[in-house]
Amino acid sequence: MTAATYDVLGIGNAIVDILAKADDDFLVRHGMTKGAMALIDEERATAVYKSMGPATEISGGSAANTIAGVASFGARAAFVGKVRDDQLGHVFAHDIKAAKVAFDTPVAESGAATARSYILVSPDGERTMNTYLGAAQDLSSDDIDEAQIAASSIVYLEGYLWDPADAKEAFLKASKIAHNHKRTVALTLSDAFCVGRYRDEFLNLIQTRTVDLVFANEAELKSLYQTEDFDAALSQLGRDATLAVVTRSEKGCMVTEKGGVTAVAAFPVKQVVDTTGAGDLFAAGFLFGVVRGFTHEQSGRLGALAAAEVIQHIGARPQTSLKALAELHGLSV
Amino acid sequence: MTAATYDVLGIGNAIVDILAKADDDFLVRHGMTKGAMALIDEERATAVYKSMGPATEISGGSAANTIAGVASFGARAAFVGKVRDDQLGHVFAHDIKAAKVAFDTPVAESGAATARSYILVSPDGERTMNTYLGAAQDLSSDDIDEAQIAASSIVYLEGYLWDPADAKEAFLKASKIAHNHKRTVALTLSDAFCVGRYRDEFLNLIQTRTVDLVFANEAELKSLYQTEDFDAALSQLGRDATLAVVTRSEKGCMVTEKGGVTAVAAFPVKQVVDTTGAGDLFAAGFLFGVVRGFTHEQSGRLGALAAAEVIQHIGARPQTSLKALAELHGLSV
Repeated sequence: MTAATYDVLGIGNAIVDILAKADDDFLVRHGMTKGAMALIDEERATAVYKSMGPATEISGGSAANTIAGVASFGARAAFVGKVRDDQLGHVFAHDIKAAKVAFDTPVAESGAATARSYILVSPDGERTMNTYLGAAQDLSSDDIDEAQIAASSIVYLEGYLWDPADAKEAFLKASKIAHNHKRTVALTLSDAFCVGRYRDEFLNLIQTRTVDLVFANEAELKSLYQTEDFDAALSQLGRDATLAVVTRSEKGCMVTEKGGVTAVAAFPVKQVVDTTGAGDLFAAGFLFGVVRGFTHEQSGRLGALAAAEVIQHIGARPQTSLKALAELHGLSV
Repeated sequence: MTAATYDVLGIGNAIVDILAKADDDFLVRHGMTKGAMALIDEERATAVYKSMGPATEISGGSAANTIAGVASFGARAAFVGKVRDDQLGHVFAHDIKAAKVAFDTPVAESGAATARSYILVSPDGERTMNTYLGAAQDLSSDDIDEAQIAASSIVYLEGYLWDPADAKEAFLKASKIAHNHKRTVALTLSDAFCVGRYRDEFLNLIQTRTVDLVFANEAELKSLYQTEDFDAALSQLGRDATLAVVTRSEKGCMVTEKGGVTAVAAFPVKQVVDTTGAGDLFAAGFLFGVVRGFTHEQSGRLGALAAAEVIQHIGARPQTSLKALAELHGLSV
């Protein structure tokens, strides 16, 4: 195993978020499931956008948010994802590079427009996502650069990659290369409904140790094992996965490895403005802890810190230096 | 004079803001004048964007922000400005329509891309703007719909309209139509450097009563009369203009009419996050007061209230209902 060029490389859907406030009545009226991510086609995208209030555009994408967070902690980071050569694609590329993340995936010169997620933020801060995948559909195994994957300590993949037709192949190719080079492969289950769509495949990835580190929230964990019994599901995940972290919002997280479980508290938050990116940024902090060889407790605290930062403002990427924030909280790195 | 369809119609550069935080060193390094608006070409736009940190896109444009504010107070509003049929043009059109503003200016199907302002927000909240005019250059007198102008109680124009080549003609045509129909014409001087570029023309517009109501801040007023003596400049403006309002940031504003001057206090603000749009939203509140036939004191307070709202978040348009905010502060409408 040679020295790594990148601490964490993420592969995911390259998406620009279009965020607007909406009350819960709006969600009901438009048949949206609060807190969930729904895939929509272009026609529905046009209709949803037309009905939304004035919006803000900010780069998003689950794994991309995580990788921007990893870079903000001061680690070496790279991202792989597909945009079109349009204005929103330019915005996505600018923002991820400006976050000091290497981003070299070839841009699509034809086909669908850059992916967008129309996100409705409720008064309580909860977000409901409507994602038009567009150009993200065109990510394929050809976009996986063996040398880059081989040179990354951790390869981080989002479960949402199972949605675009060819991205799954890219995912599996990256995982194989990483393991061939004794690297770690991490996966987030992304969304309870995403787990519902790909439950057997996700379980297989975990049980066959195609992934080494699994991130899930409570709803995703329960969906994975089709149970309402959190403790039973956590125990099962502890047996199935090498290492797993389950986030529980304001209750913090549980880290499970080799039968042992560590509970880590969340950070208190003054006001929840927008929960978009909470899970993504938790993963960023935890991955950073893993990169630095920290304890599960320390890594969980870094995850909680990053999640607390991102839910106190609009948008799913950190607006302050997570490195400085970690130092401020004595989680010095 | 027939009944109006719109309370306020604004004409201005249709711009999408691209906002990022930057320290003052960044401004110095890139030769930017803190607090000012600089016009840039496409090459400079590319260079500025490349050097900026991760950004947020929000619809802007000075008069467009004002009109969005007028609509948020509950008045009937319309906007005239030029975008290209590209993604950012779509964003601009969506946001202004979603703010309940009529926006019917034909979209450019060729030529330069939709205008963008690259805005650096300093730690103290001050903003420094770098504007690429793009498609806004293509606004011409052909875009002025006589019936629409004739049906608007107040026509509001931004001084920045003097920058694009043909917009000046649109401005003058609109002013003439408005006066022919006994409507009020208002002008904001926009920026001290803009006043520097067009001082004689702006003075002429005021002195010939081509405009009836003038908005300026301290720097613009001093630039207009090329003096550091605020009181002398204010007296002169009082003589030159029918009605004028000079904003002074946290010191509130001065309203001058027929030799009399009314001072109005600002609203206290917890934390200044981003001053982008402060003057624009002040104008929104004042114009709304004029529409409702309020006193200068009341109109000034409405302006101060709207300005206070917009400087406490990122972006130059209100994020809460100004109507509800006014009611909350006993400025009920």
